[in-house]
Amino acid sequence: IISKLPQTGTTIFTTMSALANEVGAINLSQGFPDFETSPELIKLANTALKKGHNQYAPMAGVLALREQIAKKTEKLYGTIYNPDTEITITAGGTQAIFTAITAMIHPMDEVIIFEPAYDSYAPAIKLMGGIVKSLELEPPDYRISWNMVKRLINHKTKMIILNSPHNPTATILHKEDIEELSNLVKTQDIWILSDEVYEHLIYDGETHHSMAMYPELQQRSFIVASFGKPFHATGWKVGYCMAPALLMSEFRKVHQFLVFSVNTPIQYAIAEYLKNENHYLDLPAFFQQKRDYFRKGLEQSKFKLLPCSGSYFQSVTYKDITDEKDSDFALRLTREFGVASIPVSGFYSKGTDHHVLRFCFAKRQETLDKAVDRLLKI
Amino acid sequence: IISKLPQTGTTIFTTMSALANEVGAINLSQGFPDFETSPELIKLANTALKKGHNQYAPMAGVLALREQIAKKTEKLYGTIYNPDTEITITAGGTQAIFTAITAMIHPMDEVIIFEPAYDSYAPAIKLMGGIVKSLELEPPDYRISWNMVKRLINHKTKMIILNSPHNPTATILHKEDIEELSNLVKTQDIWILSDEVYEHLIYDGETHHSMAMYPELQQRSFIVASFGKPFHATGWKVGYCMAPALLMSEFRKVHQFLVFSVNTPIQYAIAEYLKNENHYLDLPAFFQQKRDYFRKGLEQSKFKLLPCSGSYFQSVTYKDITDEKDSDFALRLTREFGVASIPVSGFYSKGTDHHVLRFCFAKRQETLDKAVDRLLKI
Ligand SMILES: CSCCC(=O)C(=O)O
Ligand SMILES: CSCCC(=O)C(=O)O
Repeated sequence: IISKLPQTGTTIFTTMSALANEVGAINLSQGFPDFETSPELIKLANTALKKGHNQYAPMAGVLALREQIAKKTEKLYGTIYNPDTEITITAGGTQAIFTAITAMIHPMDEVIIFEPAYDSYAPAIKLMGGIVKSLELEPPDYRISWNMVKRLINHKTKMIILNSPHNPTATILHKEDIEELSNLVKTQDIWILSDEVYEHLIYDGETHHSMAMYPELQQRSFIVASFGKPFHATGWKVGYCMAPALLMSEFRKVHQFLVFSVNTPIQYAIAEYLKNENHYLDLPAFFQQKRDYFRKGLEQSKFKLLPCSGSYFQSVTYKDITDEKDSDFALRLTREFGVASIPVSGFYSKGTDHHVLRFCFAKRQETLDKAVDRLLKI
Repeated sequence: IISKLPQTGTTIFTTMSALANEVGAINLSQGFPDFETSPELIKLANTALKKGHNQYAPMAGVLALREQIAKKTEKLYGTIYNPDTEITITAGGTQAIFTAITAMIHPMDEVIIFEPAYDSYAPAIKLMGGIVKSLELEPPDYRISWNMVKRLINHKTKMIILNSPHNPTATILHKEDIEELSNLVKTQDIWILSDEVYEHLIYDGETHHSMAMYPELQQRSFIVASFGKPFHATGWKVGYCMAPALLMSEFRKVHQFLVFSVNTPIQYAIAEYLKNENHYLDLPAFFQQKRDYFRKGLEQSKFKLLPCSGSYFQSVTYKDITDEKDSDFALRLTREFGVASIPVSGFYSKGTDHHVLRFCFAKRQETLDKAVDRLLKI
């Protein structure tokens, strides 16, 4: 067999979660909550199942859900997307990302990504015969040098993939980034794939700069969002993609043959749930409380906290503890101290190791307490 | 925008279902039941939701479900698949098909398909830069000429896509086909993608010849199956793929970046439901009754029934009625007579028109009665 992805093994998320289960460690590695999604949402799912919403949804998704997404997007970002032609429901954010890349990237097209990066971007590009141009960002602030980006751009550059709030670094794009980005792309044929699955998880009163807010960016963007992450139901696998009609038409050509449609009862449930806008407006405060709690707990530890402006991840450096590679240290921390994390070198294609570990703080207070107790022992 | 699928429009299923809704026709076009899935299965889904099975499933799927699939496969086909390494849960059969093609087909690889064919095969191959080699089959029996297949094979041939029971023609592979196929592939490096989503819908006591039953075929096959079709829940979007470990490892490399995992509570529900094997053993009789009822109803009509050995589709020719193209006639039948069907020319890449319409008979008796009444008026 000639593998299409010869370098690919099992994802770091699968590896670390499996190890955590094996050794009974507290699992702060893979990003998912250890608390329940809301009873109200569960009830809505039950109702949809019982009402008989169990056959194929339309290819683009249940209309009621697309309408709620349009409403939420207009409210938050001031932009009107047409549910008929510009919004498609997907089997999670990952499927939306894969589909946008599959639809747009031809062989030899170049795509710019920023590392550390979510691990699905590069393989998807490579499977389409595209070339990954990655720009490595560095702790503690992981700022994008737009001058460096400019140097990467040439006539083969077809897409830039952005992710704000960012996984794993918890940084966000700022107004200056948006301006620089606009200047860069406005005269070029470059699409933007904007992974905004953590849009609602943003702290300290900061604004999420969605591509939807800036017409010159919006018109060339595929915006990817998720319901699993914000609504504590990562296992439901429902997300969506928004893009101007011409781009969305290409997206749907692939979507209809890749998965055709998405779980129907869950779509009805989320459509109902979105009618109460507090369900998403309350999220920043909910997660900020967890972030603050976890950070406070680690203040007395030997770990050094990196900034956290969004997402549900807190990264740390550990040079006062050891100079082990982060991948080794993450394993040892799981096995010997009972706390699983993700070594951030796993998000660099070259395995660049800045000695950073990522912890997921989307956990119950008692889980965070226990984890902090253990981490203080080091 | 340079489209990757310039020839692709909206699928014929979406078009015909939308028209049926618009004009209030009885919808026998897209393949889905108009009756409810079992209350027991709904209850199991409710239980899984309430029990808190709402976070990411493992990438390969919930283990309990993979184990039930292994058990069912051993019982029905006598072959043991390893749940850890040889079975992966997918977001429906369509995603499994797309993933297998994405994992295995390199640019310029040739793939043999038989037309009429399910409409996702060819676009998936083309998106990977592969070449579609299609062999057109003809009514009434749509037999495969293995001599013709042999002539299509060369050193670039990488895959053959089979589908039995067959959509849209309702034919099945016979023992002779299996022998011819084995002879053809046994000395070559050709993979088989076997779309067996209608495995349980087979009539008149015939045997479903799964690729799982024949070691020399099994070792080179991706077998795709579905739960939505057999369990009357097409909107749940859960299916699976089985393949020997080396092939499955390539499949999973793509799967983990394409969708990562599949709806968790539904997987738990189906795992429970499969424990009662009558839930699938009873299916042939259940659907055969519908087939017989629909065929009997149409006996007095001007339509001529084609054979139906499996699947939930009944095809007809109509040369005693009109010599319209099947696509025109299907529209007229929907608008003027209130019955939506699928024109089978839509399943030929060249639009070859043998004047055949496909009706889905997975419907309540009263729906079939009404449809037959209307079809008798012609
Ligand atoms: C799809 S599994 C990974 C979940 C996640 O987004 C993360 O842990 O970074
Ligand atoms: C995925 S929509 C098509 C359903 C189906 O299998 C058919 O109607 O042929």
